[in-house]
Amino acid sequence: MSAVVTTALKKFVNDPADVVAESLSGLGAAHPDLVRIDLANRLVLRKDAPVAGKVGLVSGGGSGHEPLHGGFVGAGMLDAACPGEIFTSPVPDQMVAATKAVDGGVGVLHIVKNYTGDVMNFRLAAELAEDEGVQVESVLTNDDVAVEDSLYTAGRRGVGVTVLVEKIAGAKAEAGGSLAEVAAVARKVNERGRSFGVALTSCVTPAAGTPTFEIGPDEMEFGVGIHGEPGRRREKLRPAAEIVAEMTEAVVGDLDPDPGTPLLAFVNGLGGTPLIELYLVHNELTRQLADRGLEATRSLVGNYITSLEMAGVSITLLALDDELTALWDAPVHTPALRWGV
Amino acid sequence: MSAVVTTALKKFVNDPADVVAESLSGLGAAHPDLVRIDLANRLVLRKDAPVAGKVGLVSGGGSGHEPLHGGFVGAGMLDAACPGEIFTSPVPDQMVAATKAVDGGVGVLHIVKNYTGDVMNFRLAAELAEDEGVQVESVLTNDDVAVEDSLYTAGRRGVGVTVLVEKIAGAKAEAGGSLAEVAAVARKVNERGRSFGVALTSCVTPAAGTPTFEIGPDEMEFGVGIHGEPGRRREKLRPAAEIVAEMTEAVVGDLDPDPGTPLLAFVNGLGGTPLIELYLVHNELTRQLADRGLEATRSLVGNYITSLEMAGVSITLLALDDELTALWDAPVHTPALRWGV
Repeated sequence: MSAVVTTALKKFVNDPADVVAESLSGLGAAHPDLVRIDLANRLVLRKDAPVAGKVGLVSGGGSGHEPLHGGFVGAGMLDAACPGEIFTSPVPDQMVAATKAVDGGVGVLHIVKNYTGDVMNFRLAAELAEDEGVQVESVLTNDDVAVEDSLYTAGRRGVGVTVLVEKIAGAKAEAGGSLAEVAAVARKVNERGRSFGVALTSCVTPAAGTPTFEIGPDEMEFGVGIHGEPGRRREKLRPAAEIVAEMTEAVVGDLDPDPGTPLLAFVNGLGGTPLIELYLVHNELTRQLADRGLEATRSLVGNYITSLEMAGVSITLLALDDELTALWDAPVHTPALRWGV
Repeated sequence: MSAVVTTALKKFVNDPADVVAESLSGLGAAHPDLVRIDLANRLVLRKDAPVAGKVGLVSGGGSGHEPLHGGFVGAGMLDAACPGEIFTSPVPDQMVAATKAVDGGVGVLHIVKNYTGDVMNFRLAAELAEDEGVQVESVLTNDDVAVEDSLYTAGRRGVGVTVLVEKIAGAKAEAGGSLAEVAAVARKVNERGRSFGVALTSCVTPAAGTPTFEIGPDEMEFGVGIHGEPGRRREKLRPAAEIVAEMTEAVVGDLDPDPGTPLLAFVNGLGGTPLIELYLVHNELTRQLADRGLEATRSLVGNYITSLEMAGVSITLLALDDELTALWDAPVHTPALRWGV
């Protein structure tokens, strides 16, 4: 198929084996005020980590979802990120090194997306770190309502809510929360958040050089995962209003918020969808929520948890309360999310 | 060609004629704390515009380059943006309405990218606004060293430096600079900035539904413009290190900075290139600069002036000095660029 050939080599890379390391070096060079890179252990670290007396936050997962997780390292969010190879779990050694590097003496929270490899490796890393005297709590994100179980997951996949967990738990840690308190608010965000994604095209990993999955010229994958895992069904493309209506129904139906609950609406691009379309999707989402007597009091629109160059969009809704709103609004200084003093 | 069919319809849109208006509505809904939308005049306005006693900044141009310009409206940057239809100049009426809406009594600066339609319409708008008693200065950006004259331009095209002009002139206005001072620093940024872009794929406008230009599976357009205008030549794809070396040579050779000049390095995605590749490009750029005894003391990496979903990257270098560095670092609160108090 010529469509396959067309996209296969269209990347700014050198040796595909070096993509992650070279990109990490670029991240470090671009943001020396925020992060430092430990290339030997393959880590992105908050520049001033460990922060004494502050709970450390560690996340990680396969690369290819940038800016997740490395772009969220910095004051008010993560203390360290462990990037694996593209779409491949990081290894326990990385996670242990990260955990020790960010331990400020009051424990470390692991934020883990629900994929089998990530869960297994973070569990082992937590045990190893605890053997070395670091107190560790783990929080699992599993917000994707599209499917139960999937290619790499038992139970629901962890997707967009992970960004919100990292921001809000990061703010709680920055404000002096204990490990138990930071873990509790992280779990609260996961419990009150739901997501759903749609892909219009596949992505291409540098190592494979060909699309991860085949999709027809007039098709979309409804309920796609962030590695191109199958969703609920393959169907014909429709106008944005209809697609967003069905996505909203899936998310709101599962979340089932009380009337009047303020929402954080997170419209996330999967990488290849232009921003003009993401805002158009946000406009449709706003209308869909209004039809249900719901309102987004906070919004986030952009490419924050991606699948390389996949064209697609996910919607995440988080049921806010005063605590979560205040923690969301708190200052954050990372390469990809930055506001406040 | 099946590659053409594959991408043609892969968009989250309703009626293509409504894309710009619906996306603007989404921008307004997502960022009510920063901007407001005037749909009748097709404007993005700083929420509290006009700011009395502050020089107003207006820019605009065809849509499809998001977040440029609407995403840069807010405190410390633009007071208004006039979006045209996709890749189509806004009209003078829009520009006049924007100019009047942001006039705080001390004049308005028009920031105009060097494209024939934009230049003509902004010139007419400036005359009309002055007839109505608003003092207007105009600054042209023309930083693209790839080609002299082009499909829509006499002289060099205005590209990446436009983002830097909007940020730095915006900071100057926020700090109380006069119209003459704000215009002078805007011209200084344009004079000290140079850009060069490379495309790996075409974009697809919603109205056309087919790629703007044809490009082979192993080809790149070296020196591309932000509407897909031809560059210096079509050539075979090469490793990122070689591409960036040649891009750097084109930019540094033309800018010719004195040794030791601090640089702002702006690695910009054209829309469809994953962030992991943009940081890899930044890593190569850092090495290329070091080879020449140059250093980027400030960096910006991401999708800031795009061509819809085009896969590609541009590099902009700005020769900094103390004034420009301080204005770059000053707080900014816009949907797409945000830092500081």
